Amino acid sequence: MTQPKEDKTPRSHGRKSIRLSLKPRELMGEDEMLVRAWQAQVITLFPDAFPGVLGQSLTGKALKDGKWQLTPIPLRHFGEGKHRNVDDTPAGGGAGMVIRADVMGKAIEEARARSNAPIVYLSPRGKRFDQQMARDWAQLPGITMICGRFEGVDQRVLDHYGIAEVSLGDFVMTGGEIAAQAMLDATVRLLPGVLGNAESAVEESHSSGLLEHPQYTRPAEWQGHKIPDVLMSGHHGEIAKWRRAQSEALTKDRRPDMWAAFEALTDKE
Amino acid sequence: MTQPKEDKTPRSHGRKSIRLSLKPRELMGEDEMLVRAWQAQVITLFPDAFPGVLGQSLTGKALKDGKWQLTPIPLRHFGEGKHRNVDDTPAGGGAGMVIRADVMGKAIEEARARSNAPIVYLSPRGKRFDQQMARDWAQLPGITMICGRFEGVDQRVLDHYGIAEVSLGDFVMTGGEIAAQAMLDATVRLLPGVLGNAESAVEESHSSGLLEHPQYTRPAEWQGHKIPDVLMSGHHGEIAKWRRAQSEALTKDRRPDMWAAFEALTDKE
Repeated sequence: MTQPKEDKTPRSHGRKSIRLSLKPRELMGEDEMLVRAWQAQVITLFPDAFPGVLGQSLTGKALKDGKWQLTPIPLRHFGEGKHRNVDDTPAGGGAGMVIRADVMGKAIEEARARSNAPIVYLSPRGKRFDQQMARDWAQLPGITMICGRFEGVDQRVLDHYGIAEVSLGDFVMTGGEIAAQAMLDATVRLLPGVLGNAESAVEESHSSGLLEHPQYTRPAEWQGHKIPDVLMSGHHGEIAKWRRAQSEALTKDRRPDMWAAFEALTDKE
Repeated sequence: MTQPKEDKTPRSHGRKSIRLSLKPRELMGEDEMLVRAWQAQVITLFPDAFPGVLGQSLTGKALKDGKWQLTPIPLRHFGEGKHRNVDDTPAGGGAGMVIRADVMGKAIEEARARSNAPIVYLSPRGKRFDQQMARDWAQLPGITMICGRFEGVDQRVLDHYGIAEVSLGDFVMTGGEIAAQAMLDATVRLLPGVLGNAESAVEESHSSGLLEHPQYTRPAEWQGHKIPDVLMSGHHGEIAKWRRAQSEALTKDRRPDMWAAFEALTDKE
């Protein structure tokens, strides 16, 4: 297990660095904060896990271009005593360890001093993250995420700050770091100018309310399988019709819940 | 965007390395394959993204202890021509690029030569990953995952090999790499001996069919908020009753769908 070095100043990833400071955001000059950049902060025991995969491909390019900024806030910095302990045994007994309210509280205060973005706690008890949440987050100035580990975080700190819980899905993970990366990936690609081609975000699954149609590319024949004739016909109208029918059939078959929601929405319009 | 170096041999992460080889699994000596280790393979354009966060904490320790093994299979190795192209424009037109069937087919053949684990394609069109799927996968000898990028993979390769699609959730990501890490994290922690304390996996959210109760730890008072009296009482029966009631109330309030499923199951028993 890699422990963050105790004297290490958190680094922002992106076009320029920001040093941790206790100055409130209002006192920061424009040169200290990329005003237009979407601000992601992640409170974590594993600051070195960031940016991870987010530093590559489209999200990585957007980070380098200053379209968003990613600042891990190392929880260990706020730990108690010589070993910077962050957790203790659960009140009332039971397995595992719980992150202390006082330690997490200090990290949250640090995050609030740096950004007024909403704070969410990543937890399997939370509301399920989906494309609509990604769209909503992309409209905000940014988001601050708390990554859990062990048996979770002392409930008082969540109650005190009124922190919403968000879940990646109905499964349990070792910690929140991978969930944070998944949600940031889904959100950052919706920021203006991040996707190379504006159409890409419109046609894909969960944007239109339907699953995406099958895709094909060269070679025209592979292992005896040909590309469907209609796609090779050059008739744009027929191609669009075929793709739409495929999307509808796939959605009906695989996701009756999505199909019902899509039909309800179409009836209203 | 970091491109994998073309001449780089894929490395397995874990107790020992396996070199890419075209020998079928049957011909491999026991010294070449950790027979008891759960085998994860990931076909990806970003092999350096692995193990990422999975190399730390519990999953990282289990990797070092040989409880599982992680082998990225770099798709770029199987690309065409001098630039090792892996994708081409969609048949019938449209935005983005599609991964070629012939290129992906070669990577899949490599994966099949190394392991007979089921192959899944990570895609927002797939069945949603959940705790039950994690439990099922943990019972298998391993899993091989295909990470998409761009507009997806040529449909013929999925049809030809009968590859199931699995989705991390109802949202769209830049690629499958973070989704692969999320699913591997959730699965690996269920392998025998990975969690330090066997109780942890029983009590947590989505294992009992209920969301987990709130947790508290020292200090006894923080910012004027006290730990609930019952947890400080020392009455184990009362504590268990209180936690159960909290779990039920949380589940009813936040996840009526889970509560209905839980009630249906309890009625049957």
